[in-house]
Amino acid sequence: MAIRIAIIGFGKIARDQHVPAILADPRFELVAVASVERPPALEVPWFASTAELIEGMRGQLDAVAVCTPPQVRHAIACDAIAAGLAVILEKPPAGTLGEIDDLERKAQIARCGLYAAWHSQHAAAVQDARRLLEDATIASLNIAWFEDVRKWHPGQDWIWSVGGFGVFDPGINALSIATHILPEPLIVKEALLIEPENRQAPIAASLTFAGNASRAEFDWRHEEGECWTIHVDTEEGQTIVLEEGGARLSAGGVQLPLPERGEYNSIYSAFAEVVEKREVVVDREPLRIVADAFLVGSRVRAEPFE
Amino acid sequence: MAIRIAIIGFGKIARDQHVPAILADPRFELVAVASVERPPALEVPWFASTAELIEGMRGQLDAVAVCTPPQVRHAIACDAIAAGLAVILEKPPAGTLGEIDDLERKAQIARCGLYAAWHSQHAAAVQDARRLLEDATIASLNIAWFEDVRKWHPGQDWIWSVGGFGVFDPGINALSIATHILPEPLIVKEALLIEPENRQAPIAASLTFAGNASRAEFDWRHEEGECWTIHVDTEEGQTIVLEEGGARLSAGGVQLPLPERGEYNSIYSAFAEVVEKREVVVDREPLRIVADAFLVGSRVRAEPFE
Repeated sequence: MAIRIAIIGFGKIARDQHVPAILADPRFELVAVASVERPPALEVPWFASTAELIEGMRGQLDAVAVCTPPQVRHAIACDAIAAGLAVILEKPPAGTLGEIDDLERKAQIARCGLYAAWHSQHAAAVQDARRLLEDATIASLNIAWFEDVRKWHPGQDWIWSVGGFGVFDPGINALSIATHILPEPLIVKEALLIEPENRQAPIAASLTFAGNASRAEFDWRHEEGECWTIHVDTEEGQTIVLEEGGARLSAGGVQLPLPERGEYNSIYSAFAEVVEKREVVVDREPLRIVADAFLVGSRVRAEPFE
Repeated sequence: MAIRIAIIGFGKIARDQHVPAILADPRFELVAVASVERPPALEVPWFASTAELIEGMRGQLDAVAVCTPPQVRHAIACDAIAAGLAVILEKPPAGTLGEIDDLERKAQIARCGLYAAWHSQHAAAVQDARRLLEDATIASLNIAWFEDVRKWHPGQDWIWSVGGFGVFDPGINALSIATHILPEPLIVKEALLIEPENRQAPIAASLTFAGNASRAEFDWRHEEGECWTIHVDTEEGQTIVLEEGGARLSAGGVQLPLPERGEYNSIYSAFAEVVEKREVVVDREPLRIVADAFLVGSRVRAEPFE
């Protein structure tokens, strides 16, 4: 019997990624949507809030996918867990580390199944990169994550508000890959956070990590094309490069063949297992790095962003 | 045989607190000091760096107390752990959560004994307050931590620099008590960080916590006396108040008798056990709360601080 799932928060990521992945996977059945505004041409029941969804679908719902902005994910997930539902969370799983810890504790007690998904960890190159690096000693890591915020985040005001994390919203995708493929944890030593005068979130950031010549550069002011690249050099002389956000992989300059499955198909495959085994799968490391960067970050003011 | 200990970093907290506590405890013997400048009238060997201390005291040293500013504690503790020494860390134990995690891992592997001390957790009222609240449901927590930075931190430039955490340097003492006495973790919902125009650290901060009417107010601009108070109301109708930074305790308006042992005597008593049993005792919760506050904090500019 399929897992009856509802999507909560029906913005760009829900429509572009979650709906197609759910419809493509026979282990899931999309049975409802909850969102502030009623989406046009929706073929399943719609609810205006999580509370109304839980009440209206009682006995007809097994799981929810929380696709809202991060600031409200914790409250929604708490309600879903309290109702005995399995929960999959978009990234980042919550707005603070305390909220992540809290969801993890509550899900462990409820045994309802909780999956904090980091979609970039499901990119085609990531598993192979992780295998290539598992016994390596890292000489240097270089993350370059550049894109045009106007092109990639049109109308997403929440990314600029407090708790939206600004350029770390895409940057945390790179961090989720790096923490997953590297054999050692990343420790932030210095951070430069560049904030537009009229905003409370960085438009660019530069992190330096401990122990080796490792850096991450995030920039939203990149108007010509995108660069989502992670470059790793090992002490053993290996060079591993992930490009296009983890969709392409090369080792020693040679492009490697990769599986073709999409990130969100892989996510829902993993979530089906989490639901079946009632597991709690939570990786807080990417948000830990962002929190540490905010903690030790030097702030520099940049021109206003309109 | 006494634990032969050296102090690394010989500022105000080392001289005022660590030296008297070590001298008062027969389980310890102070055998050396490492500090950038040679302290006057020192009766034990002095070294200009951790490396020179470790080299110069080889075979004659069991433990180190790291009393430097937090930004360099991680590097010093790594060297000490690598040399097989037991380590006690002043608060906060390191500059980032990643550094704390790293020290915990390294100490667990080395089995050398690591104690991340939070001195306010050793204040006279804390154990009794914890016992009074262990089965309670918290209705509200109110932390008011006000002092004059000019009086309490004269010449301490590091508290204003990045990673010094500004008013959270004293504020984290309150958080270390609150996390220790409350039966549930504290989750930051909102934070207001007030930063002087010419500084990179807050001079005042206001935190709101999840789930109940709980707040913390930290302010360094308090020129008349001090206020270091934690007020807890429980759903069961209890009112617990810790005053003077945890030195006084009242329940329902009645002052309770407390033991007279000093915070640092209690700390070194706990550290003696950590050394003997080669334990790793690390509480990262107070710094987790500060990191979450920086992560979701709204920044407001205040007049320059000179």
